[in-house]
Amino acid sequence: MTALTKLSRNKAYDGHITKYSHNSAELACTMQLNVFLPKAADHGKVPAIYCLAGLTCTEDNFAQKAGALREAAKHGLALIFPDTSPSAGFYLNATEPKWSKHYRMYSYIVDELPSILNAELPITASALSPIVNPINCPWGQKALTGYLGNADKEAWRQYDATELLKDLDRDTKVNVLVDVGTADQFLERELLIPNLRAAAEETGRTDQFTIRMQEGYDHSYFFVASVIEDHVAHHAKHLKA
Amino acid sequence: MTALTKLSRNKAYDGHITKYSHNSAELACTMQLNVFLPKAADHGKVPAIYCLAGLTCTEDNFAQKAGALREAAKHGLALIFPDTSPSAGFYLNATEPKWSKHYRMYSYIVDELPSILNAELPITASALSPIVNPINCPWGQKALTGYLGNADKEAWRQYDATELLKDLDRDTKVNVLVDVGTADQFLERELLIPNLRAAAEETGRTDQFTIRMQEGYDHSYFFVASVIEDHVAHHAKHLKA
Repeated sequence: MTALTKLSRNKAYDGHITKYSHNSAELACTMQLNVFLPKAADHGKVPAIYCLAGLTCTEDNFAQKAGALREAAKHGLALIFPDTSPSAGFYLNATEPKWSKHYRMYSYIVDELPSILNAELPITASALSPIVNPINCPWGQKALTGYLGNADKEAWRQYDATELLKDLDRDTKVNVLVDVGTADQFLERELLIPNLRAAAEETGRTDQFTIRMQEGYDHSYFFVASVIEDHVAHHAKHLKA
Repeated sequence: MTALTKLSRNKAYDGHITKYSHNSAELACTMQLNVFLPKAADHGKVPAIYCLAGLTCTEDNFAQKAGALREAAKHGLALIFPDTSPSAGFYLNATEPKWSKHYRMYSYIVDELPSILNAELPITASALSPIVNPINCPWGQKALTGYLGNADKEAWRQYDATELLKDLDRDTKVNVLVDVGTADQFLERELLIPNLRAAAEETGRTDQFTIRMQEGYDHSYFFVASVIEDHVAHHAKHLKA
């Protein structure tokens, strides 16, 4: 019995990228995902990066446009590209009745998908996250109000990287690389990078964050592709440490 | 007065990719294209590669999926990605009345587009061509019959790489790199690689062709991306020689 149905498989960079579908109990629907396994996975387990794409993406955007496969092949890493649309929102578990049946991407990404993949594929997991401070930006507030309601704003904080950092146990170390284009059309209104930087300073973790403002780049996959080499290398370093 | 209208512009790999539209006299319609200029183009002319995509592609497929920008940036080359759909066919000038008004991609790629770009952008041209022997495969025969008619099959040969090679002046040297996946679903029926190899042998040009069968790869852009590094390097070597 397998939970994954293979839809397609293409050789890439001496490894293979495979598209699967499966029934998600958390999301109460059929989901698709792409998995890249490097050649090294033929011979045993390899570490994996979960590539969580943006609001309007499917499992294909990051897999096809980011240039990540090449770098993963170089480092012998697996890549997991979950479908994030239409049920992504802000990778949260909705509690408002209108959304709560299907919008449970937090549990899907953190629990259900790894348990399915680890049972069938030779990988372990880490996460790459572009979310900064959704409780304080217009898109975030709109989504959080809709999915979680307004009654308990404390509940919003569990899906907010900046807020979670403030609550993080002092002894837990993190290693975060953030790249942002200075020409990103959402930089000032939605991304709120200074809030993350301030939280890193407040919590004495500036040495655990590398936040780079990249001159002239925008919000497109052309930017992602331009810096992906450093990101995969960053994960490889810590996954293999 | 400019013939190109800028639709978007994204920084990528320290250069920029720009999407343009323009009115094509040859095709009697509006066309779009993407142009990647590396940083080196800020300071003067750079050589260019015309990336001619497949039958169902737009100007975006090769630009977004092939990983070519990274390699072009490395070598300081420009990349031109013309729209090839729906008017591409086999990059020919149709003579059948039903198609001859709009289906003139040969003249568009060889004459019109370079004249527009050279007038406005700091580039020169070369070509990358995946066409092998269309006069002898089902898709080619269907297209050539439709666009050129059946009356003069000699006219078909001017759009066929293998046939053109047979007619090429002995003193004209070529340098051709061909990569094909052994799991390509169109390999035996449509691509007819052995015919190109045979023509290279017949004409004493085996040293001018590198034809590589790549184990296990298929017809997708994942394959293109897996070998693009060698192709851009091949063009760079000859463009800069």
